[in-house]
Amino acid sequence: MLITGAAGMIGRKLTGRLVKDGMLCGRKISHLDLHDIVAAETPSATAITTNTHIGDLAVPGAAEALVEARPDVIFHLAGVVSGEAEANFDLGYRVNLDGTRALFDALRLAVYNPRLVFTSSIAVFGAPFPEIIPDDFHATPLTSYGTQKLMGEALLCDYSRRGLFDGIAIRLPTICVRPGKPNKAASGFFSGIIREPLKGEIAVLPVPRSVVHTHASPRSAVGFLIRAAEIDGAAVGPRRALNMPGVGVSVAEQIQALGRVAGSKAAALIREEPDQSVWAIVKNWPTRFEAHRARELGFVAETSFDDIIRAHIEDEMAGGSSPIQ
Amino acid sequence: MLITGAAGMIGRKLTGRLVKDGMLCGRKISHLDLHDIVAAETPSATAITTNTHIGDLAVPGAAEALVEARPDVIFHLAGVVSGEAEANFDLGYRVNLDGTRALFDALRLAVYNPRLVFTSSIAVFGAPFPEIIPDDFHATPLTSYGTQKLMGEALLCDYSRRGLFDGIAIRLPTICVRPGKPNKAASGFFSGIIREPLKGEIAVLPVPRSVVHTHASPRSAVGFLIRAAEIDGAAVGPRRALNMPGVGVSVAEQIQALGRVAGSKAAALIREEPDQSVWAIVKNWPTRFEAHRARELGFVAETSFDDIIRAHIEDEMAGGSSPIQ
Repeated sequence: MLITGAAGMIGRKLTGRLVKDGMLCGRKISHLDLHDIVAAETPSATAITTNTHIGDLAVPGAAEALVEARPDVIFHLAGVVSGEAEANFDLGYRVNLDGTRALFDALRLAVYNPRLVFTSSIAVFGAPFPEIIPDDFHATPLTSYGTQKLMGEALLCDYSRRGLFDGIAIRLPTICVRPGKPNKAASGFFSGIIREPLKGEIAVLPVPRSVVHTHASPRSAVGFLIRAAEIDGAAVGPRRALNMPGVGVSVAEQIQALGRVAGSKAAALIREEPDQSVWAIVKNWPTRFEAHRARELGFVAETSFDDIIRAHIEDEMAGGSSPIQ
Repeated sequence: MLITGAAGMIGRKLTGRLVKDGMLCGRKISHLDLHDIVAAETPSATAITTNTHIGDLAVPGAAEALVEARPDVIFHLAGVVSGEAEANFDLGYRVNLDGTRALFDALRLAVYNPRLVFTSSIAVFGAPFPEIIPDDFHATPLTSYGTQKLMGEALLCDYSRRGLFDGIAIRLPTICVRPGKPNKAASGFFSGIIREPLKGEIAVLPVPRSVVHTHASPRSAVGFLIRAAEIDGAAVGPRRALNMPGVGVSVAEQIQALGRVAGSKAAALIREEPDQSVWAIVKNWPTRFEAHRARELGFVAETSFDDIIRAHIEDEMAGGSSPIQ
């Protein structure tokens, strides 16, 4: 089994889950290859042998070396994030497009048709949107990141159709609550207004409370990846990019949930400080998704934002253990 | 001005039209660069200076050399066709994806934001289809050719959004009547059942007469390219890939039109010889297109199949002049 982008937040959580389960697709996991541009942490106390690989997938030969062991499942999470891909044209296309294509071509040339799970994003969609985005909504990205993810999906569908690998692309909604420190991503406040008050700290809300957005917990994101590894590709058919389910709520509803789960004092720690530059970005983001196909294929998300907050408390704040950040 | 794929059927007709008009976008054409993997014919009897370039756009440096003269309009027609891209994986991705990206990147690095017109295709769409395909129908190609065209469109939209060039992608319907000899393309019969009977020769119809498909003449295809060079990019907005209009007719209606234009003896030269292998491909092809956006933006196609046949007679068979093939 191979995970690219293994040192990232989702990569670390996926590694942890696989080590804990010891199984995937009904089979015992014997080996894990963890790849990233920095060293991924090696899981401890496990019978699974682990190799850590450091490098850039777009470098000639790198992807070939990585798939030499013929992993039966590949989780391709590696990528630069939206803001970085927009700010740095060359880096975005190099990592998100060339790196992805290099991996796909290495699998093509290895000729053994493994399952490949690719994390795409709802950034493949661009405004204007209907109130609820159907599964067959057209993909017209408005960022370089979304463009690169769309191109990765297109390759994945074609390579899967040709039987070069058996790919599933999952379009992730916003992952919330993101653990760790506040960052400067335009979406950062969605997590910040929950994470900081839970620690007794003040959080800033830069957009109106009426903003509606779809969220899934990091735990659900890992669940999506596991499910994507397990499902029958033939049942998915040729349209291999799936909109993941999530909880579509307004910011006001997020704050109400925080009040229910952690008390009104926590909810009172949110300061409204309208920021036009954040609003200019967020107002063009998709709101709610239908995600019929994914639900029918067994992808499960939380059903309320309360559950998303509880997942964060359990996974990041419980038992005094050092949280995964 | 630069035309890639200038030696192909559409490239030659576009060159002929530009030389005849002497003008584009209200400005006199002073120079034409004609690029292809074989030498394009140099137009004669014209005040326009012409350079012919032979080469592969995907070769490092080739695209940079081609845009050195900073053409103000680029018609990017170069590509391998559907059947070839399906049969030859490497060639299809090299020419249709890498060649296109190399040209786009050369323009990006030249930093002068010219108009670029890219011939995409209705092959970006995959079955199942609604009866009339709306402009915002999702693109889920079922061929490598369609995948490569979709990836080219995605790049074009992102590069245009970033102001690297001002791109318009036109999704061509089936071009009919194609001049020249019968070929083995699955779509070949759509032209063959008109072209051969007009010459008094027998033509084979391998699919049911009920098959509905959308057609535009080569003359209209050239008109689309000219219009795409002229329109205001800002008016098109960020969704730069446009479904071109055409004439949506059944094969039965094509044959009726042939009877009206050329007489019942011509129509009687069509032999029905059902071919399951052709039918298996054609039954998954799109039928009719809405093409609202393109019509509003001034793209004009024939309004009847009779007109498509007449265009073929005028352009290819009139005056005893040697037809462009």
